[in-house]
Amino acid sequence: MGRGKLYVVGFGPGAEAHLTRRAREAIEDSEVVVGYTTYIGLVRPLLEGKEVIRSGMQEEIARAVAAVERAEQGRRVAVISSGDAGVYGMAGLVLEVLAGRGWDPETGVELEIVPGVTALNACAALVGAPIMHDFAAISLSDLLTPWDVILRRLDAAASADFVIALYNPASGRRQRQVVEAVEVIGRYRSPTTPCALVKSAYRERQSVVLTDLAHVLDHEIGMLTTILIGNSNTYTYKGYMITPRGYHNKYDAAGRRREGIGQWESLTAEKLERVLGSRQE
Amino acid sequence: MGRGKLYVVGFGPGAEAHLTRRAREAIEDSEVVVGYTTYIGLVRPLLEGKEVIRSGMQEEIARAVAAVERAEQGRRVAVISSGDAGVYGMAGLVLEVLAGRGWDPETGVELEIVPGVTALNACAALVGAPIMHDFAAISLSDLLTPWDVILRRLDAAASADFVIALYNPASGRRQRQVVEAVEVIGRYRSPTTPCALVKSAYRERQSVVLTDLAHVLDHEIGMLTTILIGNSNTYTYKGYMITPRGYHNKYDAAGRRREGIGQWESLTAEKLERVLGSRQE
Repeated sequence: MGRGKLYVVGFGPGAEAHLTRRAREAIEDSEVVVGYTTYIGLVRPLLEGKEVIRSGMQEEIARAVAAVERAEQGRRVAVISSGDAGVYGMAGLVLEVLAGRGWDPETGVELEIVPGVTALNACAALVGAPIMHDFAAISLSDLLTPWDVILRRLDAAASADFVIALYNPASGRRQRQVVEAVEVIGRYRSPTTPCALVKSAYRERQSVVLTDLAHVLDHEIGMLTTILIGNSNTYTYKGYMITPRGYHNKYDAAGRRREGIGQWESLTAEKLERVLGSRQE
Repeated sequence: MGRGKLYVVGFGPGAEAHLTRRAREAIEDSEVVVGYTTYIGLVRPLLEGKEVIRSGMQEEIARAVAAVERAEQGRRVAVISSGDAGVYGMAGLVLEVLAGRGWDPETGVELEIVPGVTALNACAALVGAPIMHDFAAISLSDLLTPWDVILRRLDAAASADFVIALYNPASGRRQRQVVEAVEVIGRYRSPTTPCALVKSAYRERQSVVLTDLAHVLDHEIGMLTTILIGNSNTYTYKGYMITPRGYHNKYDAAGRRREGIGQWESLTAEKLERVLGSRQE
């Protein structure tokens, strides 16, 4: 019996276009593919002839154990997640299950974690460039994390002017958290702070709403929504959300306000080359 | 003259294996490819027959303007970044330049931002599952951001128990910042907190070091290093860094310590199905 191979694969936002080559290879190389029912549906064209183990939400531990067991039997197994498997995904759970079983990376199942395009980046690409500067990702699901820990993170991220991405903002039963989160963030950030609500990025029912902190709760927010909240420098331009790279455009090293990127707007690349000493080929 | 098309493309950590299909298509479809010299080298096989505009670091504005100008002339242009173009990348700069020139998304250059696998996810995949829970990304480059803003973010992220990713921790001239950052984080987090230093993920000179907060500064840290710092729950297992999904394994809703995932270790998938009501096909 061979060693068995266990891939943990992030397949990106859902459309095949944003799958990496390595993620595709990993799925193709596997005899068994394990995933949440919805995810299995998204990669259906790649699954012909394979054993498929699918299960519902909140059955992640069972999926991880099932995958590890089959790999231990010498089979090639892919555990699939949408986005990146390392971000609120299956990678940690698979490693926890392996560790709990005394796995030896040298002699046991061979493990490969294949990174993917995470929801944060997929959503950001659809609304412009909201996360060009320091950012914090916070899940509002208090199923596994005490709400006071989440509140502390919201407060810290808002007070230190991080761009904030809220994962799992609400579900059918869980509606209170996002209201409280927006209230905490509003203590530090202007009501006009640009916000985006992105649902099902790069999937059939994709929806992108650009709004501001004062109006973010006026829109439908569900399990598949990611909320992006700008920092104090974020602005909008004709349907796009833009966070400048630094505070360069507002302050110099001594904190004095100075000219923004607007100063470049009438420059041609040729002039800029002279200014910046750029060499182009 | 046609409208011109401007792609802003994140090509992932550098190896072709982690390029998405859409990123490849965007580069292939372009007549002009614009990028930092090192990045151009990484995607060389895709560039045959194309006009290539490359320039050095800190010449990003010139690159953005050059790309926008060519697209305005009706050409198809790809601006390429490693990782994801929206994370400390070129997407924001291109949008700022477009906005500065009064761009109209309806009638002007057609813009498509193509998301990629960002350094954070690529590095995380190589060390296990360090960012399974809420995380904050902070760049230590104070070229465009006042150091006191960065310090405030380090303090906030550390105090609220975020997993922390430090981008741009040091360069040839800039060595002091990472020392101060580790000192700030150490006020809140144990010296045994697992840390990973990942350099050139998925590239030829890839280097992965697993260490802890007390020893993180004993290792070489440069411009291409990303530092991942665990939260209070992160642990290591035989060369892997694992952050559990929640605090479930340590505390119940009332803050009492309870059994961890270890309780599952001897369960088979069959038993788990009974426990969790999982249906598998």
